[in-house]
Amino acid sequence: VRNLLFVMADQLRWDAIGCANGDLPFATPNIDDLAARGVRFDRAYTQGATCGSSRMSFYTGRYVTSHGARYNEIPLNLTEATLADHLRPLGVESYLIGKTHSVLDPFGAAALGLDPTGATAQIRADAGFKRVVRYDGVAAANSPDSGQTAYDDFLRSNGYDIANPWHDIANSGRRNDGSSASGWTMESGLWPAIVPDELSETAWTTDLAIDFMRDKGAAPWCLHLSYIKPHWPYVVSEPYHQLVDQSDLPVAKRSAHEVGGHPAMTAFQAMRISRNFSDDAKRAGVHCAYFGLIAQLDHHLGRLWGELERLGRSNDTMIVFTSDHGDYMGDHWMGEKDYLHDSAIRVPLIVVDPSAGADSTRGSAVNVPTECIDVLPTFVEAVGGEPDASLGGGWIEGQSLVPFLTGVGKRTGSDQVAVSETDYGFREMRDALPELEAPLLRARSITTERWKYIEHDLFGPQLFDLDNDPDELIDLGQHSGYAAVRSDLTDGLHQWRNSLKLDPRTPAHRFARPGLGAVAARGFPIGFWDEAEIQTAKDARDLLR
Amino acid sequence: VRNLLFVMADQLRWDAIGCANGDLPFATPNIDDLAARGVRFDRAYTQGATCGSSRMSFYTGRYVTSHGARYNEIPLNLTEATLADHLRPLGVESYLIGKTHSVLDPFGAAALGLDPTGATAQIRADAGFKRVVRYDGVAAANSPDSGQTAYDDFLRSNGYDIANPWHDIANSGRRNDGSSASGWTMESGLWPAIVPDELSETAWTTDLAIDFMRDKGAAPWCLHLSYIKPHWPYVVSEPYHQLVDQSDLPVAKRSAHEVGGHPAMTAFQAMRISRNFSDDAKRAGVHCAYFGLIAQLDHHLGRLWGELERLGRSNDTMIVFTSDHGDYMGDHWMGEKDYLHDSAIRVPLIVVDPSAGADSTRGSAVNVPTECIDVLPTFVEAVGGEPDASLGGGWIEGQSLVPFLTGVGKRTGSDQVAVSETDYGFREMRDALPELEAPLLRARSITTERWKYIEHDLFGPQLFDLDNDPDELIDLGQHSGYAAVRSDLTDGLHQWRNSLKLDPRTPAHRFARPGLGAVAARGFPIGFWDEAEIQTAKDARDLLR
Repeated sequence: VRNLLFVMADQLRWDAIGCANGDLPFATPNIDDLAARGVRFDRAYTQGATCGSSRMSFYTGRYVTSHGARYNEIPLNLTEATLADHLRPLGVESYLIGKTHSVLDPFGAAALGLDPTGATAQIRADAGFKRVVRYDGVAAANSPDSGQTAYDDFLRSNGYDIANPWHDIANSGRRNDGSSASGWTMESGLWPAIVPDELSETAWTTDLAIDFMRDKGAAPWCLHLSYIKPHWPYVVSEPYHQLVDQSDLPVAKRSAHEVGGHPAMTAFQAMRISRNFSDDAKRAGVHCAYFGLIAQLDHHLGRLWGELERLGRSNDTMIVFTSDHGDYMGDHWMGEKDYLHDSAIRVPLIVVDPSAGADSTRGSAVNVPTECIDVLPTFVEAVGGEPDASLGGGWIEGQSLVPFLTGVGKRTGSDQVAVSETDYGFREMRDALPELEAPLLRARSITTERWKYIEHDLFGPQLFDLDNDPDELIDLGQHSGYAAVRSDLTDGLHQWRNSLKLDPRTPAHRFARPGLGAVAARGFPIGFWDEAEIQTAKDARDLLR
Repeated sequence: VRNLLFVMADQLRWDAIGCANGDLPFATPNIDDLAARGVRFDRAYTQGATCGSSRMSFYTGRYVTSHGARYNEIPLNLTEATLADHLRPLGVESYLIGKTHSVLDPFGAAALGLDPTGATAQIRADAGFKRVVRYDGVAAANSPDSGQTAYDDFLRSNGYDIANPWHDIANSGRRNDGSSASGWTMESGLWPAIVPDELSETAWTTDLAIDFMRDKGAAPWCLHLSYIKPHWPYVVSEPYHQLVDQSDLPVAKRSAHEVGGHPAMTAFQAMRISRNFSDDAKRAGVHCAYFGLIAQLDHHLGRLWGELERLGRSNDTMIVFTSDHGDYMGDHWMGEKDYLHDSAIRVPLIVVDPSAGADSTRGSAVNVPTECIDVLPTFVEAVGGEPDASLGGGWIEGQSLVPFLTGVGKRTGSDQVAVSETDYGFREMRDALPELEAPLLRARSITTERWKYIEHDLFGPQLFDLDNDPDELIDLGQHSGYAAVRSDLTDGLHQWRNSLKLDPRTPAHRFARPGLGAVAARGFPIGFWDEAEIQTAKDARDLLR
């Protein structure tokens, strides 16, 4: 493997691709093609339940609590090592096209006198990647540079010479009467986007990637190609707008028992977006647009795979396709993400390894829980390296997925769990809760082969039996018959918490016995009574005992 | 309060000063004088059980798990805000004379292109302090610059013109036959140091501080005056060497029941230094030298208080006197520190506030558990400031001690606990344990008014009833009658763990409701169905619901 193509969608549910869901009312042939050529991790969980926290886990290979960027716009510590930092010593530069949601750590920059406009600051602001084109889409659209992104410039140069083509053209629908429906409203999903498909954000992002691959020629690269779709605004160009008929939509995964149940869910359900998504008529229009955006993404991915093939790079490029999180889409009477059901934290994860060693696993699916922090060490292993200890490589918390690709040494036992975290203190629902210390609004889930257990700091726990209740509709969190299960899973979270690698500055060798021996051997023996005792130990070649 | 004098001893037990221990076989009049002028925190606990981890907690106001510098020579993350960073915006520069045990974060420096010889790098390497003279004593003595410290130069300029005067003169004893006993051996404690008192490390460090205060005149300052004594080598100059008679020494706090008990203690007790300290004949000589070093420190502190008075600074200088940790000195059949008995983690802590508001508490002692991370916010409050949110001020985990000084608003209830941490994977005992993942060798204690509970990742817990067993000789960790107590204290640690401020990059306002309102108000409403719904919410002046 020489090149790494790290493709990320935004807000793409695990079950919204054909290879994962036979009942999907539209086709995703190009994503399915990837699954046929590689391994699909059917139970991949993001570590964070929102864009920023999830992405920082992907980029650092570390849990949210470890890297500390718990939500959007929270900076990663300036000195956290990222994928790009781990690949650089192995001769692979990492480039960015699209979204990262990362920001520069302002205290770190100020404390260290870092020029915030300099090259180092930009690389850290981009999570270590070299920027080809950074484009955060909707996350940038309401900022002071609204209308000033590279995509806005692209639309202006294609005849839309207005102040904010992102909003007015790409993220507004055209009603039958010719008026515009803003993508900031959900009703826009009822109408086709004003922008034609070939000028859409997804098309443009793909074009940038194709240009990048052509320019690079035979040089090795890692490209993080990070689409901002199918994230809202749920507005999509023709022909994708008419692709799915409302009568073919899946039924929302929800039950009357979920109303008035767990207090955190109750607060979530009270948010306006949840209320609107709980209205089937409203949900239907949005859901069709969401599926259309995925079909559009699939189409353009086909162009990408084709170009990779034409360039002769299919044979030496590892492809990872994934998403930062899902979308409730009305499941559990909720909208958006930020909570811990599969609708929000279970994501597509497909890995294509072109090496002959991976031939035996092509087209297979892995059904044990895996984690998105596993992607980073997978890439490092794929290019033949080991995480560099001097970069904090020993502090990566993910585990390489390569054993699943080669069929050798798969995970067993206690490794088969996934932990995800959320902090719902950042969302509107906070306003419905009493004034509380921030950390209390946190929750974390541990998912095993059978169970999902959600531990809350403020409320009681939740428990779902995924074997018998895969849609997570029956909360066993207070059921007396499951106390032992809950206790085991509490222990699992306790073990997880104590094993977090919170001190990435500790050189790995400091934990190794040879290192301790070396310290003793360099002549710093303590605790000896006199020179004779030291000499005896030296003669025995053991200054440690 | 205008000036801050932050005096730290190294390895000074809580009970080795006269004001804390009426049975002490020697006097510490100058430390006692401080206690009479201020408040003595009788149950102050360090957060780390070894120099580096403890000091980084003092300097950041954060628990060891939060700052991540779990042991000596582990760098504080380059972007952790320290005392100096918190005081700087308040107009107070912080200076260093003596030891910090801090090192520069090499990954951070490399990642950010920081010149490792530049001013910023030196300040970060010195934990944010401006260096007057940095002197890590024994921690530097065996490094490549052995014999090249400022103190070595001082001794050479005073007639000891040899390669390593630190070792040969200041840290070697002179036997009766005229030969030298190296301070690297414990037997050196039997003999007087070759160096005369007035040229000792303690005298020299004090002289530097006196010069500093004279030079500063009326300008405000914070001085971290950090002695490296009474830390081993246990060698002290006359007249302190003969000060205490072996027959007057305290009996070691140990019991036959402690042998072969808890496996972590068993491994500790098997270390050579523990074996030697468990031999009463050997312990006695060392202990006399240890006491002598404390008496010597007390004498020179008297010179310091006198100079402060002469300079007219006693009336506007807050003085904190403390230590980074204790010394087992044979208690529990152990030597050194690194574990969680009071002998190791309970330290002297005296705070003198010259303000009139503190007059009512002078000479008093506080008996509830307090923490060394409380010193930083105490200093910030004393100079009239509040922690600066932009510097991560909201992420300080200590609480100001000022209420104890003014007698207003003392801590109550659940605040009256102290948490300390150790990671014994760094010590020789690791060699006696099976090869294990590093985090498993960690333990943490929670100390309440009555109990101390020690939770281990690898072994079962320990529990001591401090009311009935203040010497911590009876381990109730497995006693069936105390399951409820252990369960409560486990919950306390769970609560502590979940409240750790591990994400210091989150701006404090992100957690506040007004901040959320502001986000909504800036026009980024999501979840609305159409413009009419938005208008209705705007009319109701509530975009959140």
